[in-house]
Amino acid sequence: MTDYKESGVDIDAGNEFVKKIKPFVQPTWDKNVNTDLKSFAALYKNGKNKYLAASTDGVGTKVKIAIAMNKHDTIGIDLVAMCVNDIITIGAEPLFFLDYIACENLSKNKEALEDVVKGIAEGCKIAGCSLVGGETAEMLSLYFFGEYDLAGFAVGEVYKKKIINGKNIKKGDKLLGLASSGLHSNGYSLARHLFFKKLRKPVISQVFKFGRTVGEELLEPTKIYVNEVNAVKKKIKGISNITGGGFIENIPRTLPEGLGVEIKKGNWPVHPIFAYMQDKGEIEEKEMYKTFNMGIGMVFVVDKKFKYSDIKKVEDLGTKVYEIGKVVGKEGVNLI
Amino acid sequence: MTDYKESGVDIDAGNEFVKKIKPFVQPTWDKNVNTDLKSFAALYKNGKNKYLAASTDGVGTKVKIAIAMNKHDTIGIDLVAMCVNDIITIGAEPLFFLDYIACENLSKNKEALEDVVKGIAEGCKIAGCSLVGGETAEMLSLYFFGEYDLAGFAVGEVYKKKIINGKNIKKGDKLLGLASSGLHSNGYSLARHLFFKKLRKPVISQVFKFGRTVGEELLEPTKIYVNEVNAVKKKIKGISNITGGGFIENIPRTLPEGLGVEIKKGNWPVHPIFAYMQDKGEIEEKEMYKTFNMGIGMVFVVDKKFKYSDIKKVEDLGTKVYEIGKVVGKEGVNLI
Repeated sequence: MTDYKESGVDIDAGNEFVKKIKPFVQPTWDKNVNTDLKSFAALYKNGKNKYLAASTDGVGTKVKIAIAMNKHDTIGIDLVAMCVNDIITIGAEPLFFLDYIACENLSKNKEALEDVVKGIAEGCKIAGCSLVGGETAEMLSLYFFGEYDLAGFAVGEVYKKKIINGKNIKKGDKLLGLASSGLHSNGYSLARHLFFKKLRKPVISQVFKFGRTVGEELLEPTKIYVNEVNAVKKKIKGISNITGGGFIENIPRTLPEGLGVEIKKGNWPVHPIFAYMQDKGEIEEKEMYKTFNMGIGMVFVVDKKFKYSDIKKVEDLGTKVYEIGKVVGKEGVNLI
Repeated sequence: MTDYKESGVDIDAGNEFVKKIKPFVQPTWDKNVNTDLKSFAALYKNGKNKYLAASTDGVGTKVKIAIAMNKHDTIGIDLVAMCVNDIITIGAEPLFFLDYIACENLSKNKEALEDVVKGIAEGCKIAGCSLVGGETAEMLSLYFFGEYDLAGFAVGEVYKKKIINGKNIKKGDKLLGLASSGLHSNGYSLARHLFFKKLRKPVISQVFKFGRTVGEELLEPTKIYVNEVNAVKKKIKGISNITGGGFIENIPRTLPEGLGVEIKKGNWPVHPIFAYMQDKGEIEEKEMYKTFNMGIGMVFVVDKKFKYSDIKKVEDLGTKVYEIGKVVGKEGVNLI
């Protein structure tokens, strides 16, 4: 049986760390900060009626797939997606983006790194934000030959009245799941451990169920949900970005205290990559839902009267929507 | 003779890279972006009279010193300094900060990484900004045992009228140099190459001229100049943050076309670390000024009638100020 700790990532240690640093972090907050450590993005007051929203993220070891494939023109889309999908959960419109690229050698990898920036620019176009700055650092001694790491920063804005914070969520509300494009950019240490070490399938291996190679499947860019959120924004009570920590950890982040969710697992087609990994890796189902998005990249909490015509607005953008469950009066995520 | 290329960092490759990515980056800019790729921070319109200013940066291989010393509580100050010192060059007040920490193993290095965040929080207090968010990524396969990398992101704001952009700089204006605390966070690949490889002096070696060990000297935190800028902000025409690219590359970034500077090298006491490195490393003087801050961390361009009482306002904050040169009618940096 494979789990995430075995592959070198400890989600619980991450949560523990956030608790530990809280006493240093909170005293730096001025009166304009309106955030808590569980939200997907930070809010900072900006004038009378508005807030800025900010988020930072990386793409984890998905960069190792881009490097193994020597294909670098989409990993930048992932970087933008990871940051922007956080700030839209609170209703913000993305404004601008900055990137940090750290590499072993700039001149020897300049074509790869130019492709990385091309991807970032493409991601920014999809998300409707401006790529206003970046830093490219050359650090021979910190990175292995030909490798690099990426960090992104997104800033958006939202009118106070339009903040989506989950506070009106009530028992009986529906959960709509938006299809993911695959793994997105989380759980790659586990996925890499499984494919490359356990199954000994390198990136060039064809997998029948994927209809393409392992590398192509793993490098599929993360979906950017800006347009999907905008299409029905006024009618959404809460949004969860299914990122690190998967289904189990992320859905409760948008819920008020005392409420939980019931998820009907059969209600959407699990993306083939997850079925394959669970099966071949003998990964426990709970571990799967705690690590991966399982085919649902973003969850909208909406009133049970949410109309089919609104679902269609999202689907017309090319993203499948599934009714995956409902809000219940007991905390936690109950998979049935 | 030692130079920066030999140590694995190629400043020219960095400049070349910025030119190459421009054609992808600029098409993402909306009408609110007001920046060019030479400025220290990006400006983004925020309402009628204001702009947001943003910058991202890392601390380069200074992290390797923190790791070698196993002392992690100040490298976060450097991270904040590197970002905030960029946004104050255009007159912006820092609002908030986010950090990205990528490490090999979170639970095995949790005390070190908690200290990193403590330092970031301390830097934010000095800079007067709120630490609103961050990401801590565990990436076993990308980083060596016990190592980590840091990226920071600062957002500030400035009234349109109060933007410092150098456009009123004229021939005859004075250059005021504000003392640095040492190397700050640039040129560490060269410094490490020199001390550890060429001179074979590990971090624990005592150096008489430093009055402390090599490691203590190299780990001295970067000075944060927020208060110094605020003390005389209205009277400053242009500000240069002496960061990657040193004196030679950074001073021209705040000057209008057609103007250059004449620097009188004897006008300030070169910090002992630079004299030592130049001497022992047989580094060419031009290479020194192109890589390091040479004892001056920030340069203010002011009218020649700038008063002594204003200089005193800055010095009262504990930062020495030197008249290091003047603006001349010929482009370039002329060291005399």
